[in-house]
Amino acid sequence: MRIVVDAMGSDDHPAPDVAGAALAAREFKDTIILVGDQGQIETELAKLDTSGLSIEVQHAGQKIEMTDKPSKVVKGKPNSSMHVGIGLVKRGEADAFVTAGNTGGALAVAMLRQVGLGRIPGVKRPALGVIFPIEERPLLIDNGANADCKPEYLLQFSLMGSLYVERALGIQNPRVALISNGEEEGKGNALIKEAIPLLQASGLNYIGNIEPKEFMQGAADVGVTDGFTGNVIIKTAEAIASYMNNMIRREIKASPLTILGGLLARPAFKRVGRRLNPDEVGGAPLLGVNGVVIVAHGGSNAYAMKQAIGQARRIVEKKVVEAIRTGMSSEE
Amino acid sequence: MRIVVDAMGSDDHPAPDVAGAALAAREFKDTIILVGDQGQIETELAKLDTSGLSIEVQHAGQKIEMTDKPSKVVKGKPNSSMHVGIGLVKRGEADAFVTAGNTGGALAVAMLRQVGLGRIPGVKRPALGVIFPIEERPLLIDNGANADCKPEYLLQFSLMGSLYVERALGIQNPRVALISNGEEEGKGNALIKEAIPLLQASGLNYIGNIEPKEFMQGAADVGVTDGFTGNVIIKTAEAIASYMNNMIRREIKASPLTILGGLLARPAFKRVGRRLNPDEVGGAPLLGVNGVVIVAHGGSNAYAMKQAIGQARRIVEKKVVEAIRTGMSSEE
Repeated sequence: MRIVVDAMGSDDHPAPDVAGAALAAREFKDTIILVGDQGQIETELAKLDTSGLSIEVQHAGQKIEMTDKPSKVVKGKPNSSMHVGIGLVKRGEADAFVTAGNTGGALAVAMLRQVGLGRIPGVKRPALGVIFPIEERPLLIDNGANADCKPEYLLQFSLMGSLYVERALGIQNPRVALISNGEEEGKGNALIKEAIPLLQASGLNYIGNIEPKEFMQGAADVGVTDGFTGNVIIKTAEAIASYMNNMIRREIKASPLTILGGLLARPAFKRVGRRLNPDEVGGAPLLGVNGVVIVAHGGSNAYAMKQAIGQARRIVEKKVVEAIRTGMSSEE
Repeated sequence: MRIVVDAMGSDDHPAPDVAGAALAAREFKDTIILVGDQGQIETELAKLDTSGLSIEVQHAGQKIEMTDKPSKVVKGKPNSSMHVGIGLVKRGEADAFVTAGNTGGALAVAMLRQVGLGRIPGVKRPALGVIFPIEERPLLIDNGANADCKPEYLLQFSLMGSLYVERALGIQNPRVALISNGEEEGKGNALIKEAIPLLQASGLNYIGNIEPKEFMQGAADVGVTDGFTGNVIIKTAEAIASYMNNMIRREIKASPLTILGGLLARPAFKRVGRRLNPDEVGGAPLLGVNGVVIVAHGGSNAYAMKQAIGQARRIVEKKVVEAIRTGMSSEE
C-alpha cells in the first residue's frame, strides 16, 4: 500500500508529521510518501532512524495554513502539499491521503474535479466523521463539513457512516441515530423532524433520535447530525473535559493532603487520560469523497499521526469507498 | 413579596418542592404560595417546622407530568398546578411563579392569553435562559424553548439575556456573543451569519462569535444560540461531566493505592462537585414572558428549589420584566 502524508499539516509541522510517517512505515510496512518542503522533510528524516523503511519524498512548494480560507486556497495555492498529495491519489499513484492540516482546505482541495478526487457519484455532500474517544467509539457525522444541511444530506451521512463503521470498525448492522434535543416524538428541529421519515424508510438500522447523553453512553454506533451541531458537540465535549481537568488539578493542589491523594491516585488519572485520548482514534475520515482522505487534528503528535495513517490503510483495505459507491448507486 | 411555587413539579414532588418553599420562606421572609394537591402539600408541611413562616396553600386538582405534551396540557389540564399558579401571577395576586416541572408545559401555560401571562409586547419568541454552572456564571439563551429560530429571534434573545444579566446578576455592559463553530469570519450556519449584522447594529456589547471553548472560559456574559443548539450544548456538557466523573471513580477503584489516593483527595473532589453543582445557580428564567417564571430542573432538591425561588425574587426586585418591556418598546 502507498499512503501520502502531508508533512506541512500539523500545528508543529513538519516534525510530528514526518515522525508519525516513519512510525507508520515501520509498523505497517507500507510505502509512505511525504509531501511538502523537501528540505524541511529531509532535515526531519535525518533525525530519525529510517533504515529499512519505504519512505519517499515529494516536493510541494506551498502550504495551506490553518487560517487560510478554504475558498481561497483552492486556486491561490495550486502547489500546496494538499494539492500535490491529493493529486497523487487522484492519479492512482497512492491509495490514501492523510493530513493534520486545515479541514476546510483538505475538503476543498479533495472536492476539486480536475486535480482533486471529487465526489462519489450520487453523494450530495461529503461529510466529516469523527470517532468519539469514549469506550464505545461511536462515529459522529457530520462534524463540520456542512454547517447547513437538508434532510437528504442527513440520510446520506447515515448511509456513509453506517458503511464506514461496518467495514472499517467491523461492527455488524450498526445502530444509527439522529442526535436531537430529546427522544420523544415531536422533539427536534425542523431538519431532524424531516429527516426521521427518510431514516425510517432507509433500510438502515435506525434506532430513533437520541440525546447527547445516550450517545455518550454508547446507545448508537453512528450519531448523525448537521455539521454545525456536530462541531458544537465535539467542541463542547472538549471544553468541558478540559474545564473539569483543570478544576480537579487546581482543587487537588489546594492542600497538602489532597496533593498527596492526587499523587497516589495519579495512575488512575493517567488511565482516564489514555482512555479519553483523541490521539488513539486516529483522524476524521472525509466520507463521500471519491478516494481516501483522513484529517487528523492539528495538535497531532507523531503517535496520533501514525494512528491516523493506520486508519487510512484500514479504509483502503476494507474498501470503504467502494462500499459507499455501491451503496449510492443502489440508492438511485 | 409573594412567590408561587408549584408543589407538583419536581421528579420527587411534592417533598423537595414544599421543603424548598419552606427554606425560602425562612431565608427571604417572603410569602410563599404552594400550589398543588392540598392534602399532599399539607402532609409535607406537617413534617417541617414552619412556625413563623408565611406559607399559603392553593389547591389545584391536576398536575402536568414530565411526559405530557405541551400542546395537550394547555386545554387538557385547565386545573393543573401550573395553570392555577400562573393564574395567580396573572391576576396580580403573586409576583412570580417557580416550577421544577415540564419546561414545555410551563412555557405553554405561561403563554396563554386568557389564563396565562402572554408575551411582552414586541417579543417574537420567549426563550429559556440557563446559567452555566461554571465559575464565571455566563447565561446561555435559548436553551430549548425554540428549536427553530430566525435571526431576529437571536437578536431578541441577546437583548433579553443582556438585560437579565445586567439587572439580576449586576454585570455592567454585559458581553454578548453568538455561539458558533468558529470565530473566524465566514464560520457559522446560515442562521448565525444572518444574525451577525443584526447584533452588530444592535447597540449591545456584541463581542462576536465564540466557540463553546471560549464560552466555558468565560469569554462572554451572554451566549446566544437557537434552542436546539443550546439544548444540545447543555446536554453534551452534562453528559461529558457525568462520563468523566464515572470514569475517574472507576479508575480510582481499580487498585488499593489509587483508592487511598482517592480518599485523601476527596475534599478536592467535593469542592469540584460543589463548584459545578447546577443546584447553586437556581432555575432557568423564561425571558420574554410578561411576568416572572422560573423553571428549575426536574431533579431539584429542596436547596435547588430554594435557590430558584431566590432567583425569582431577584428578578422581581430588579424589575427585569419591566426592563425587557422598555427595551422592546424602544426596539420598535
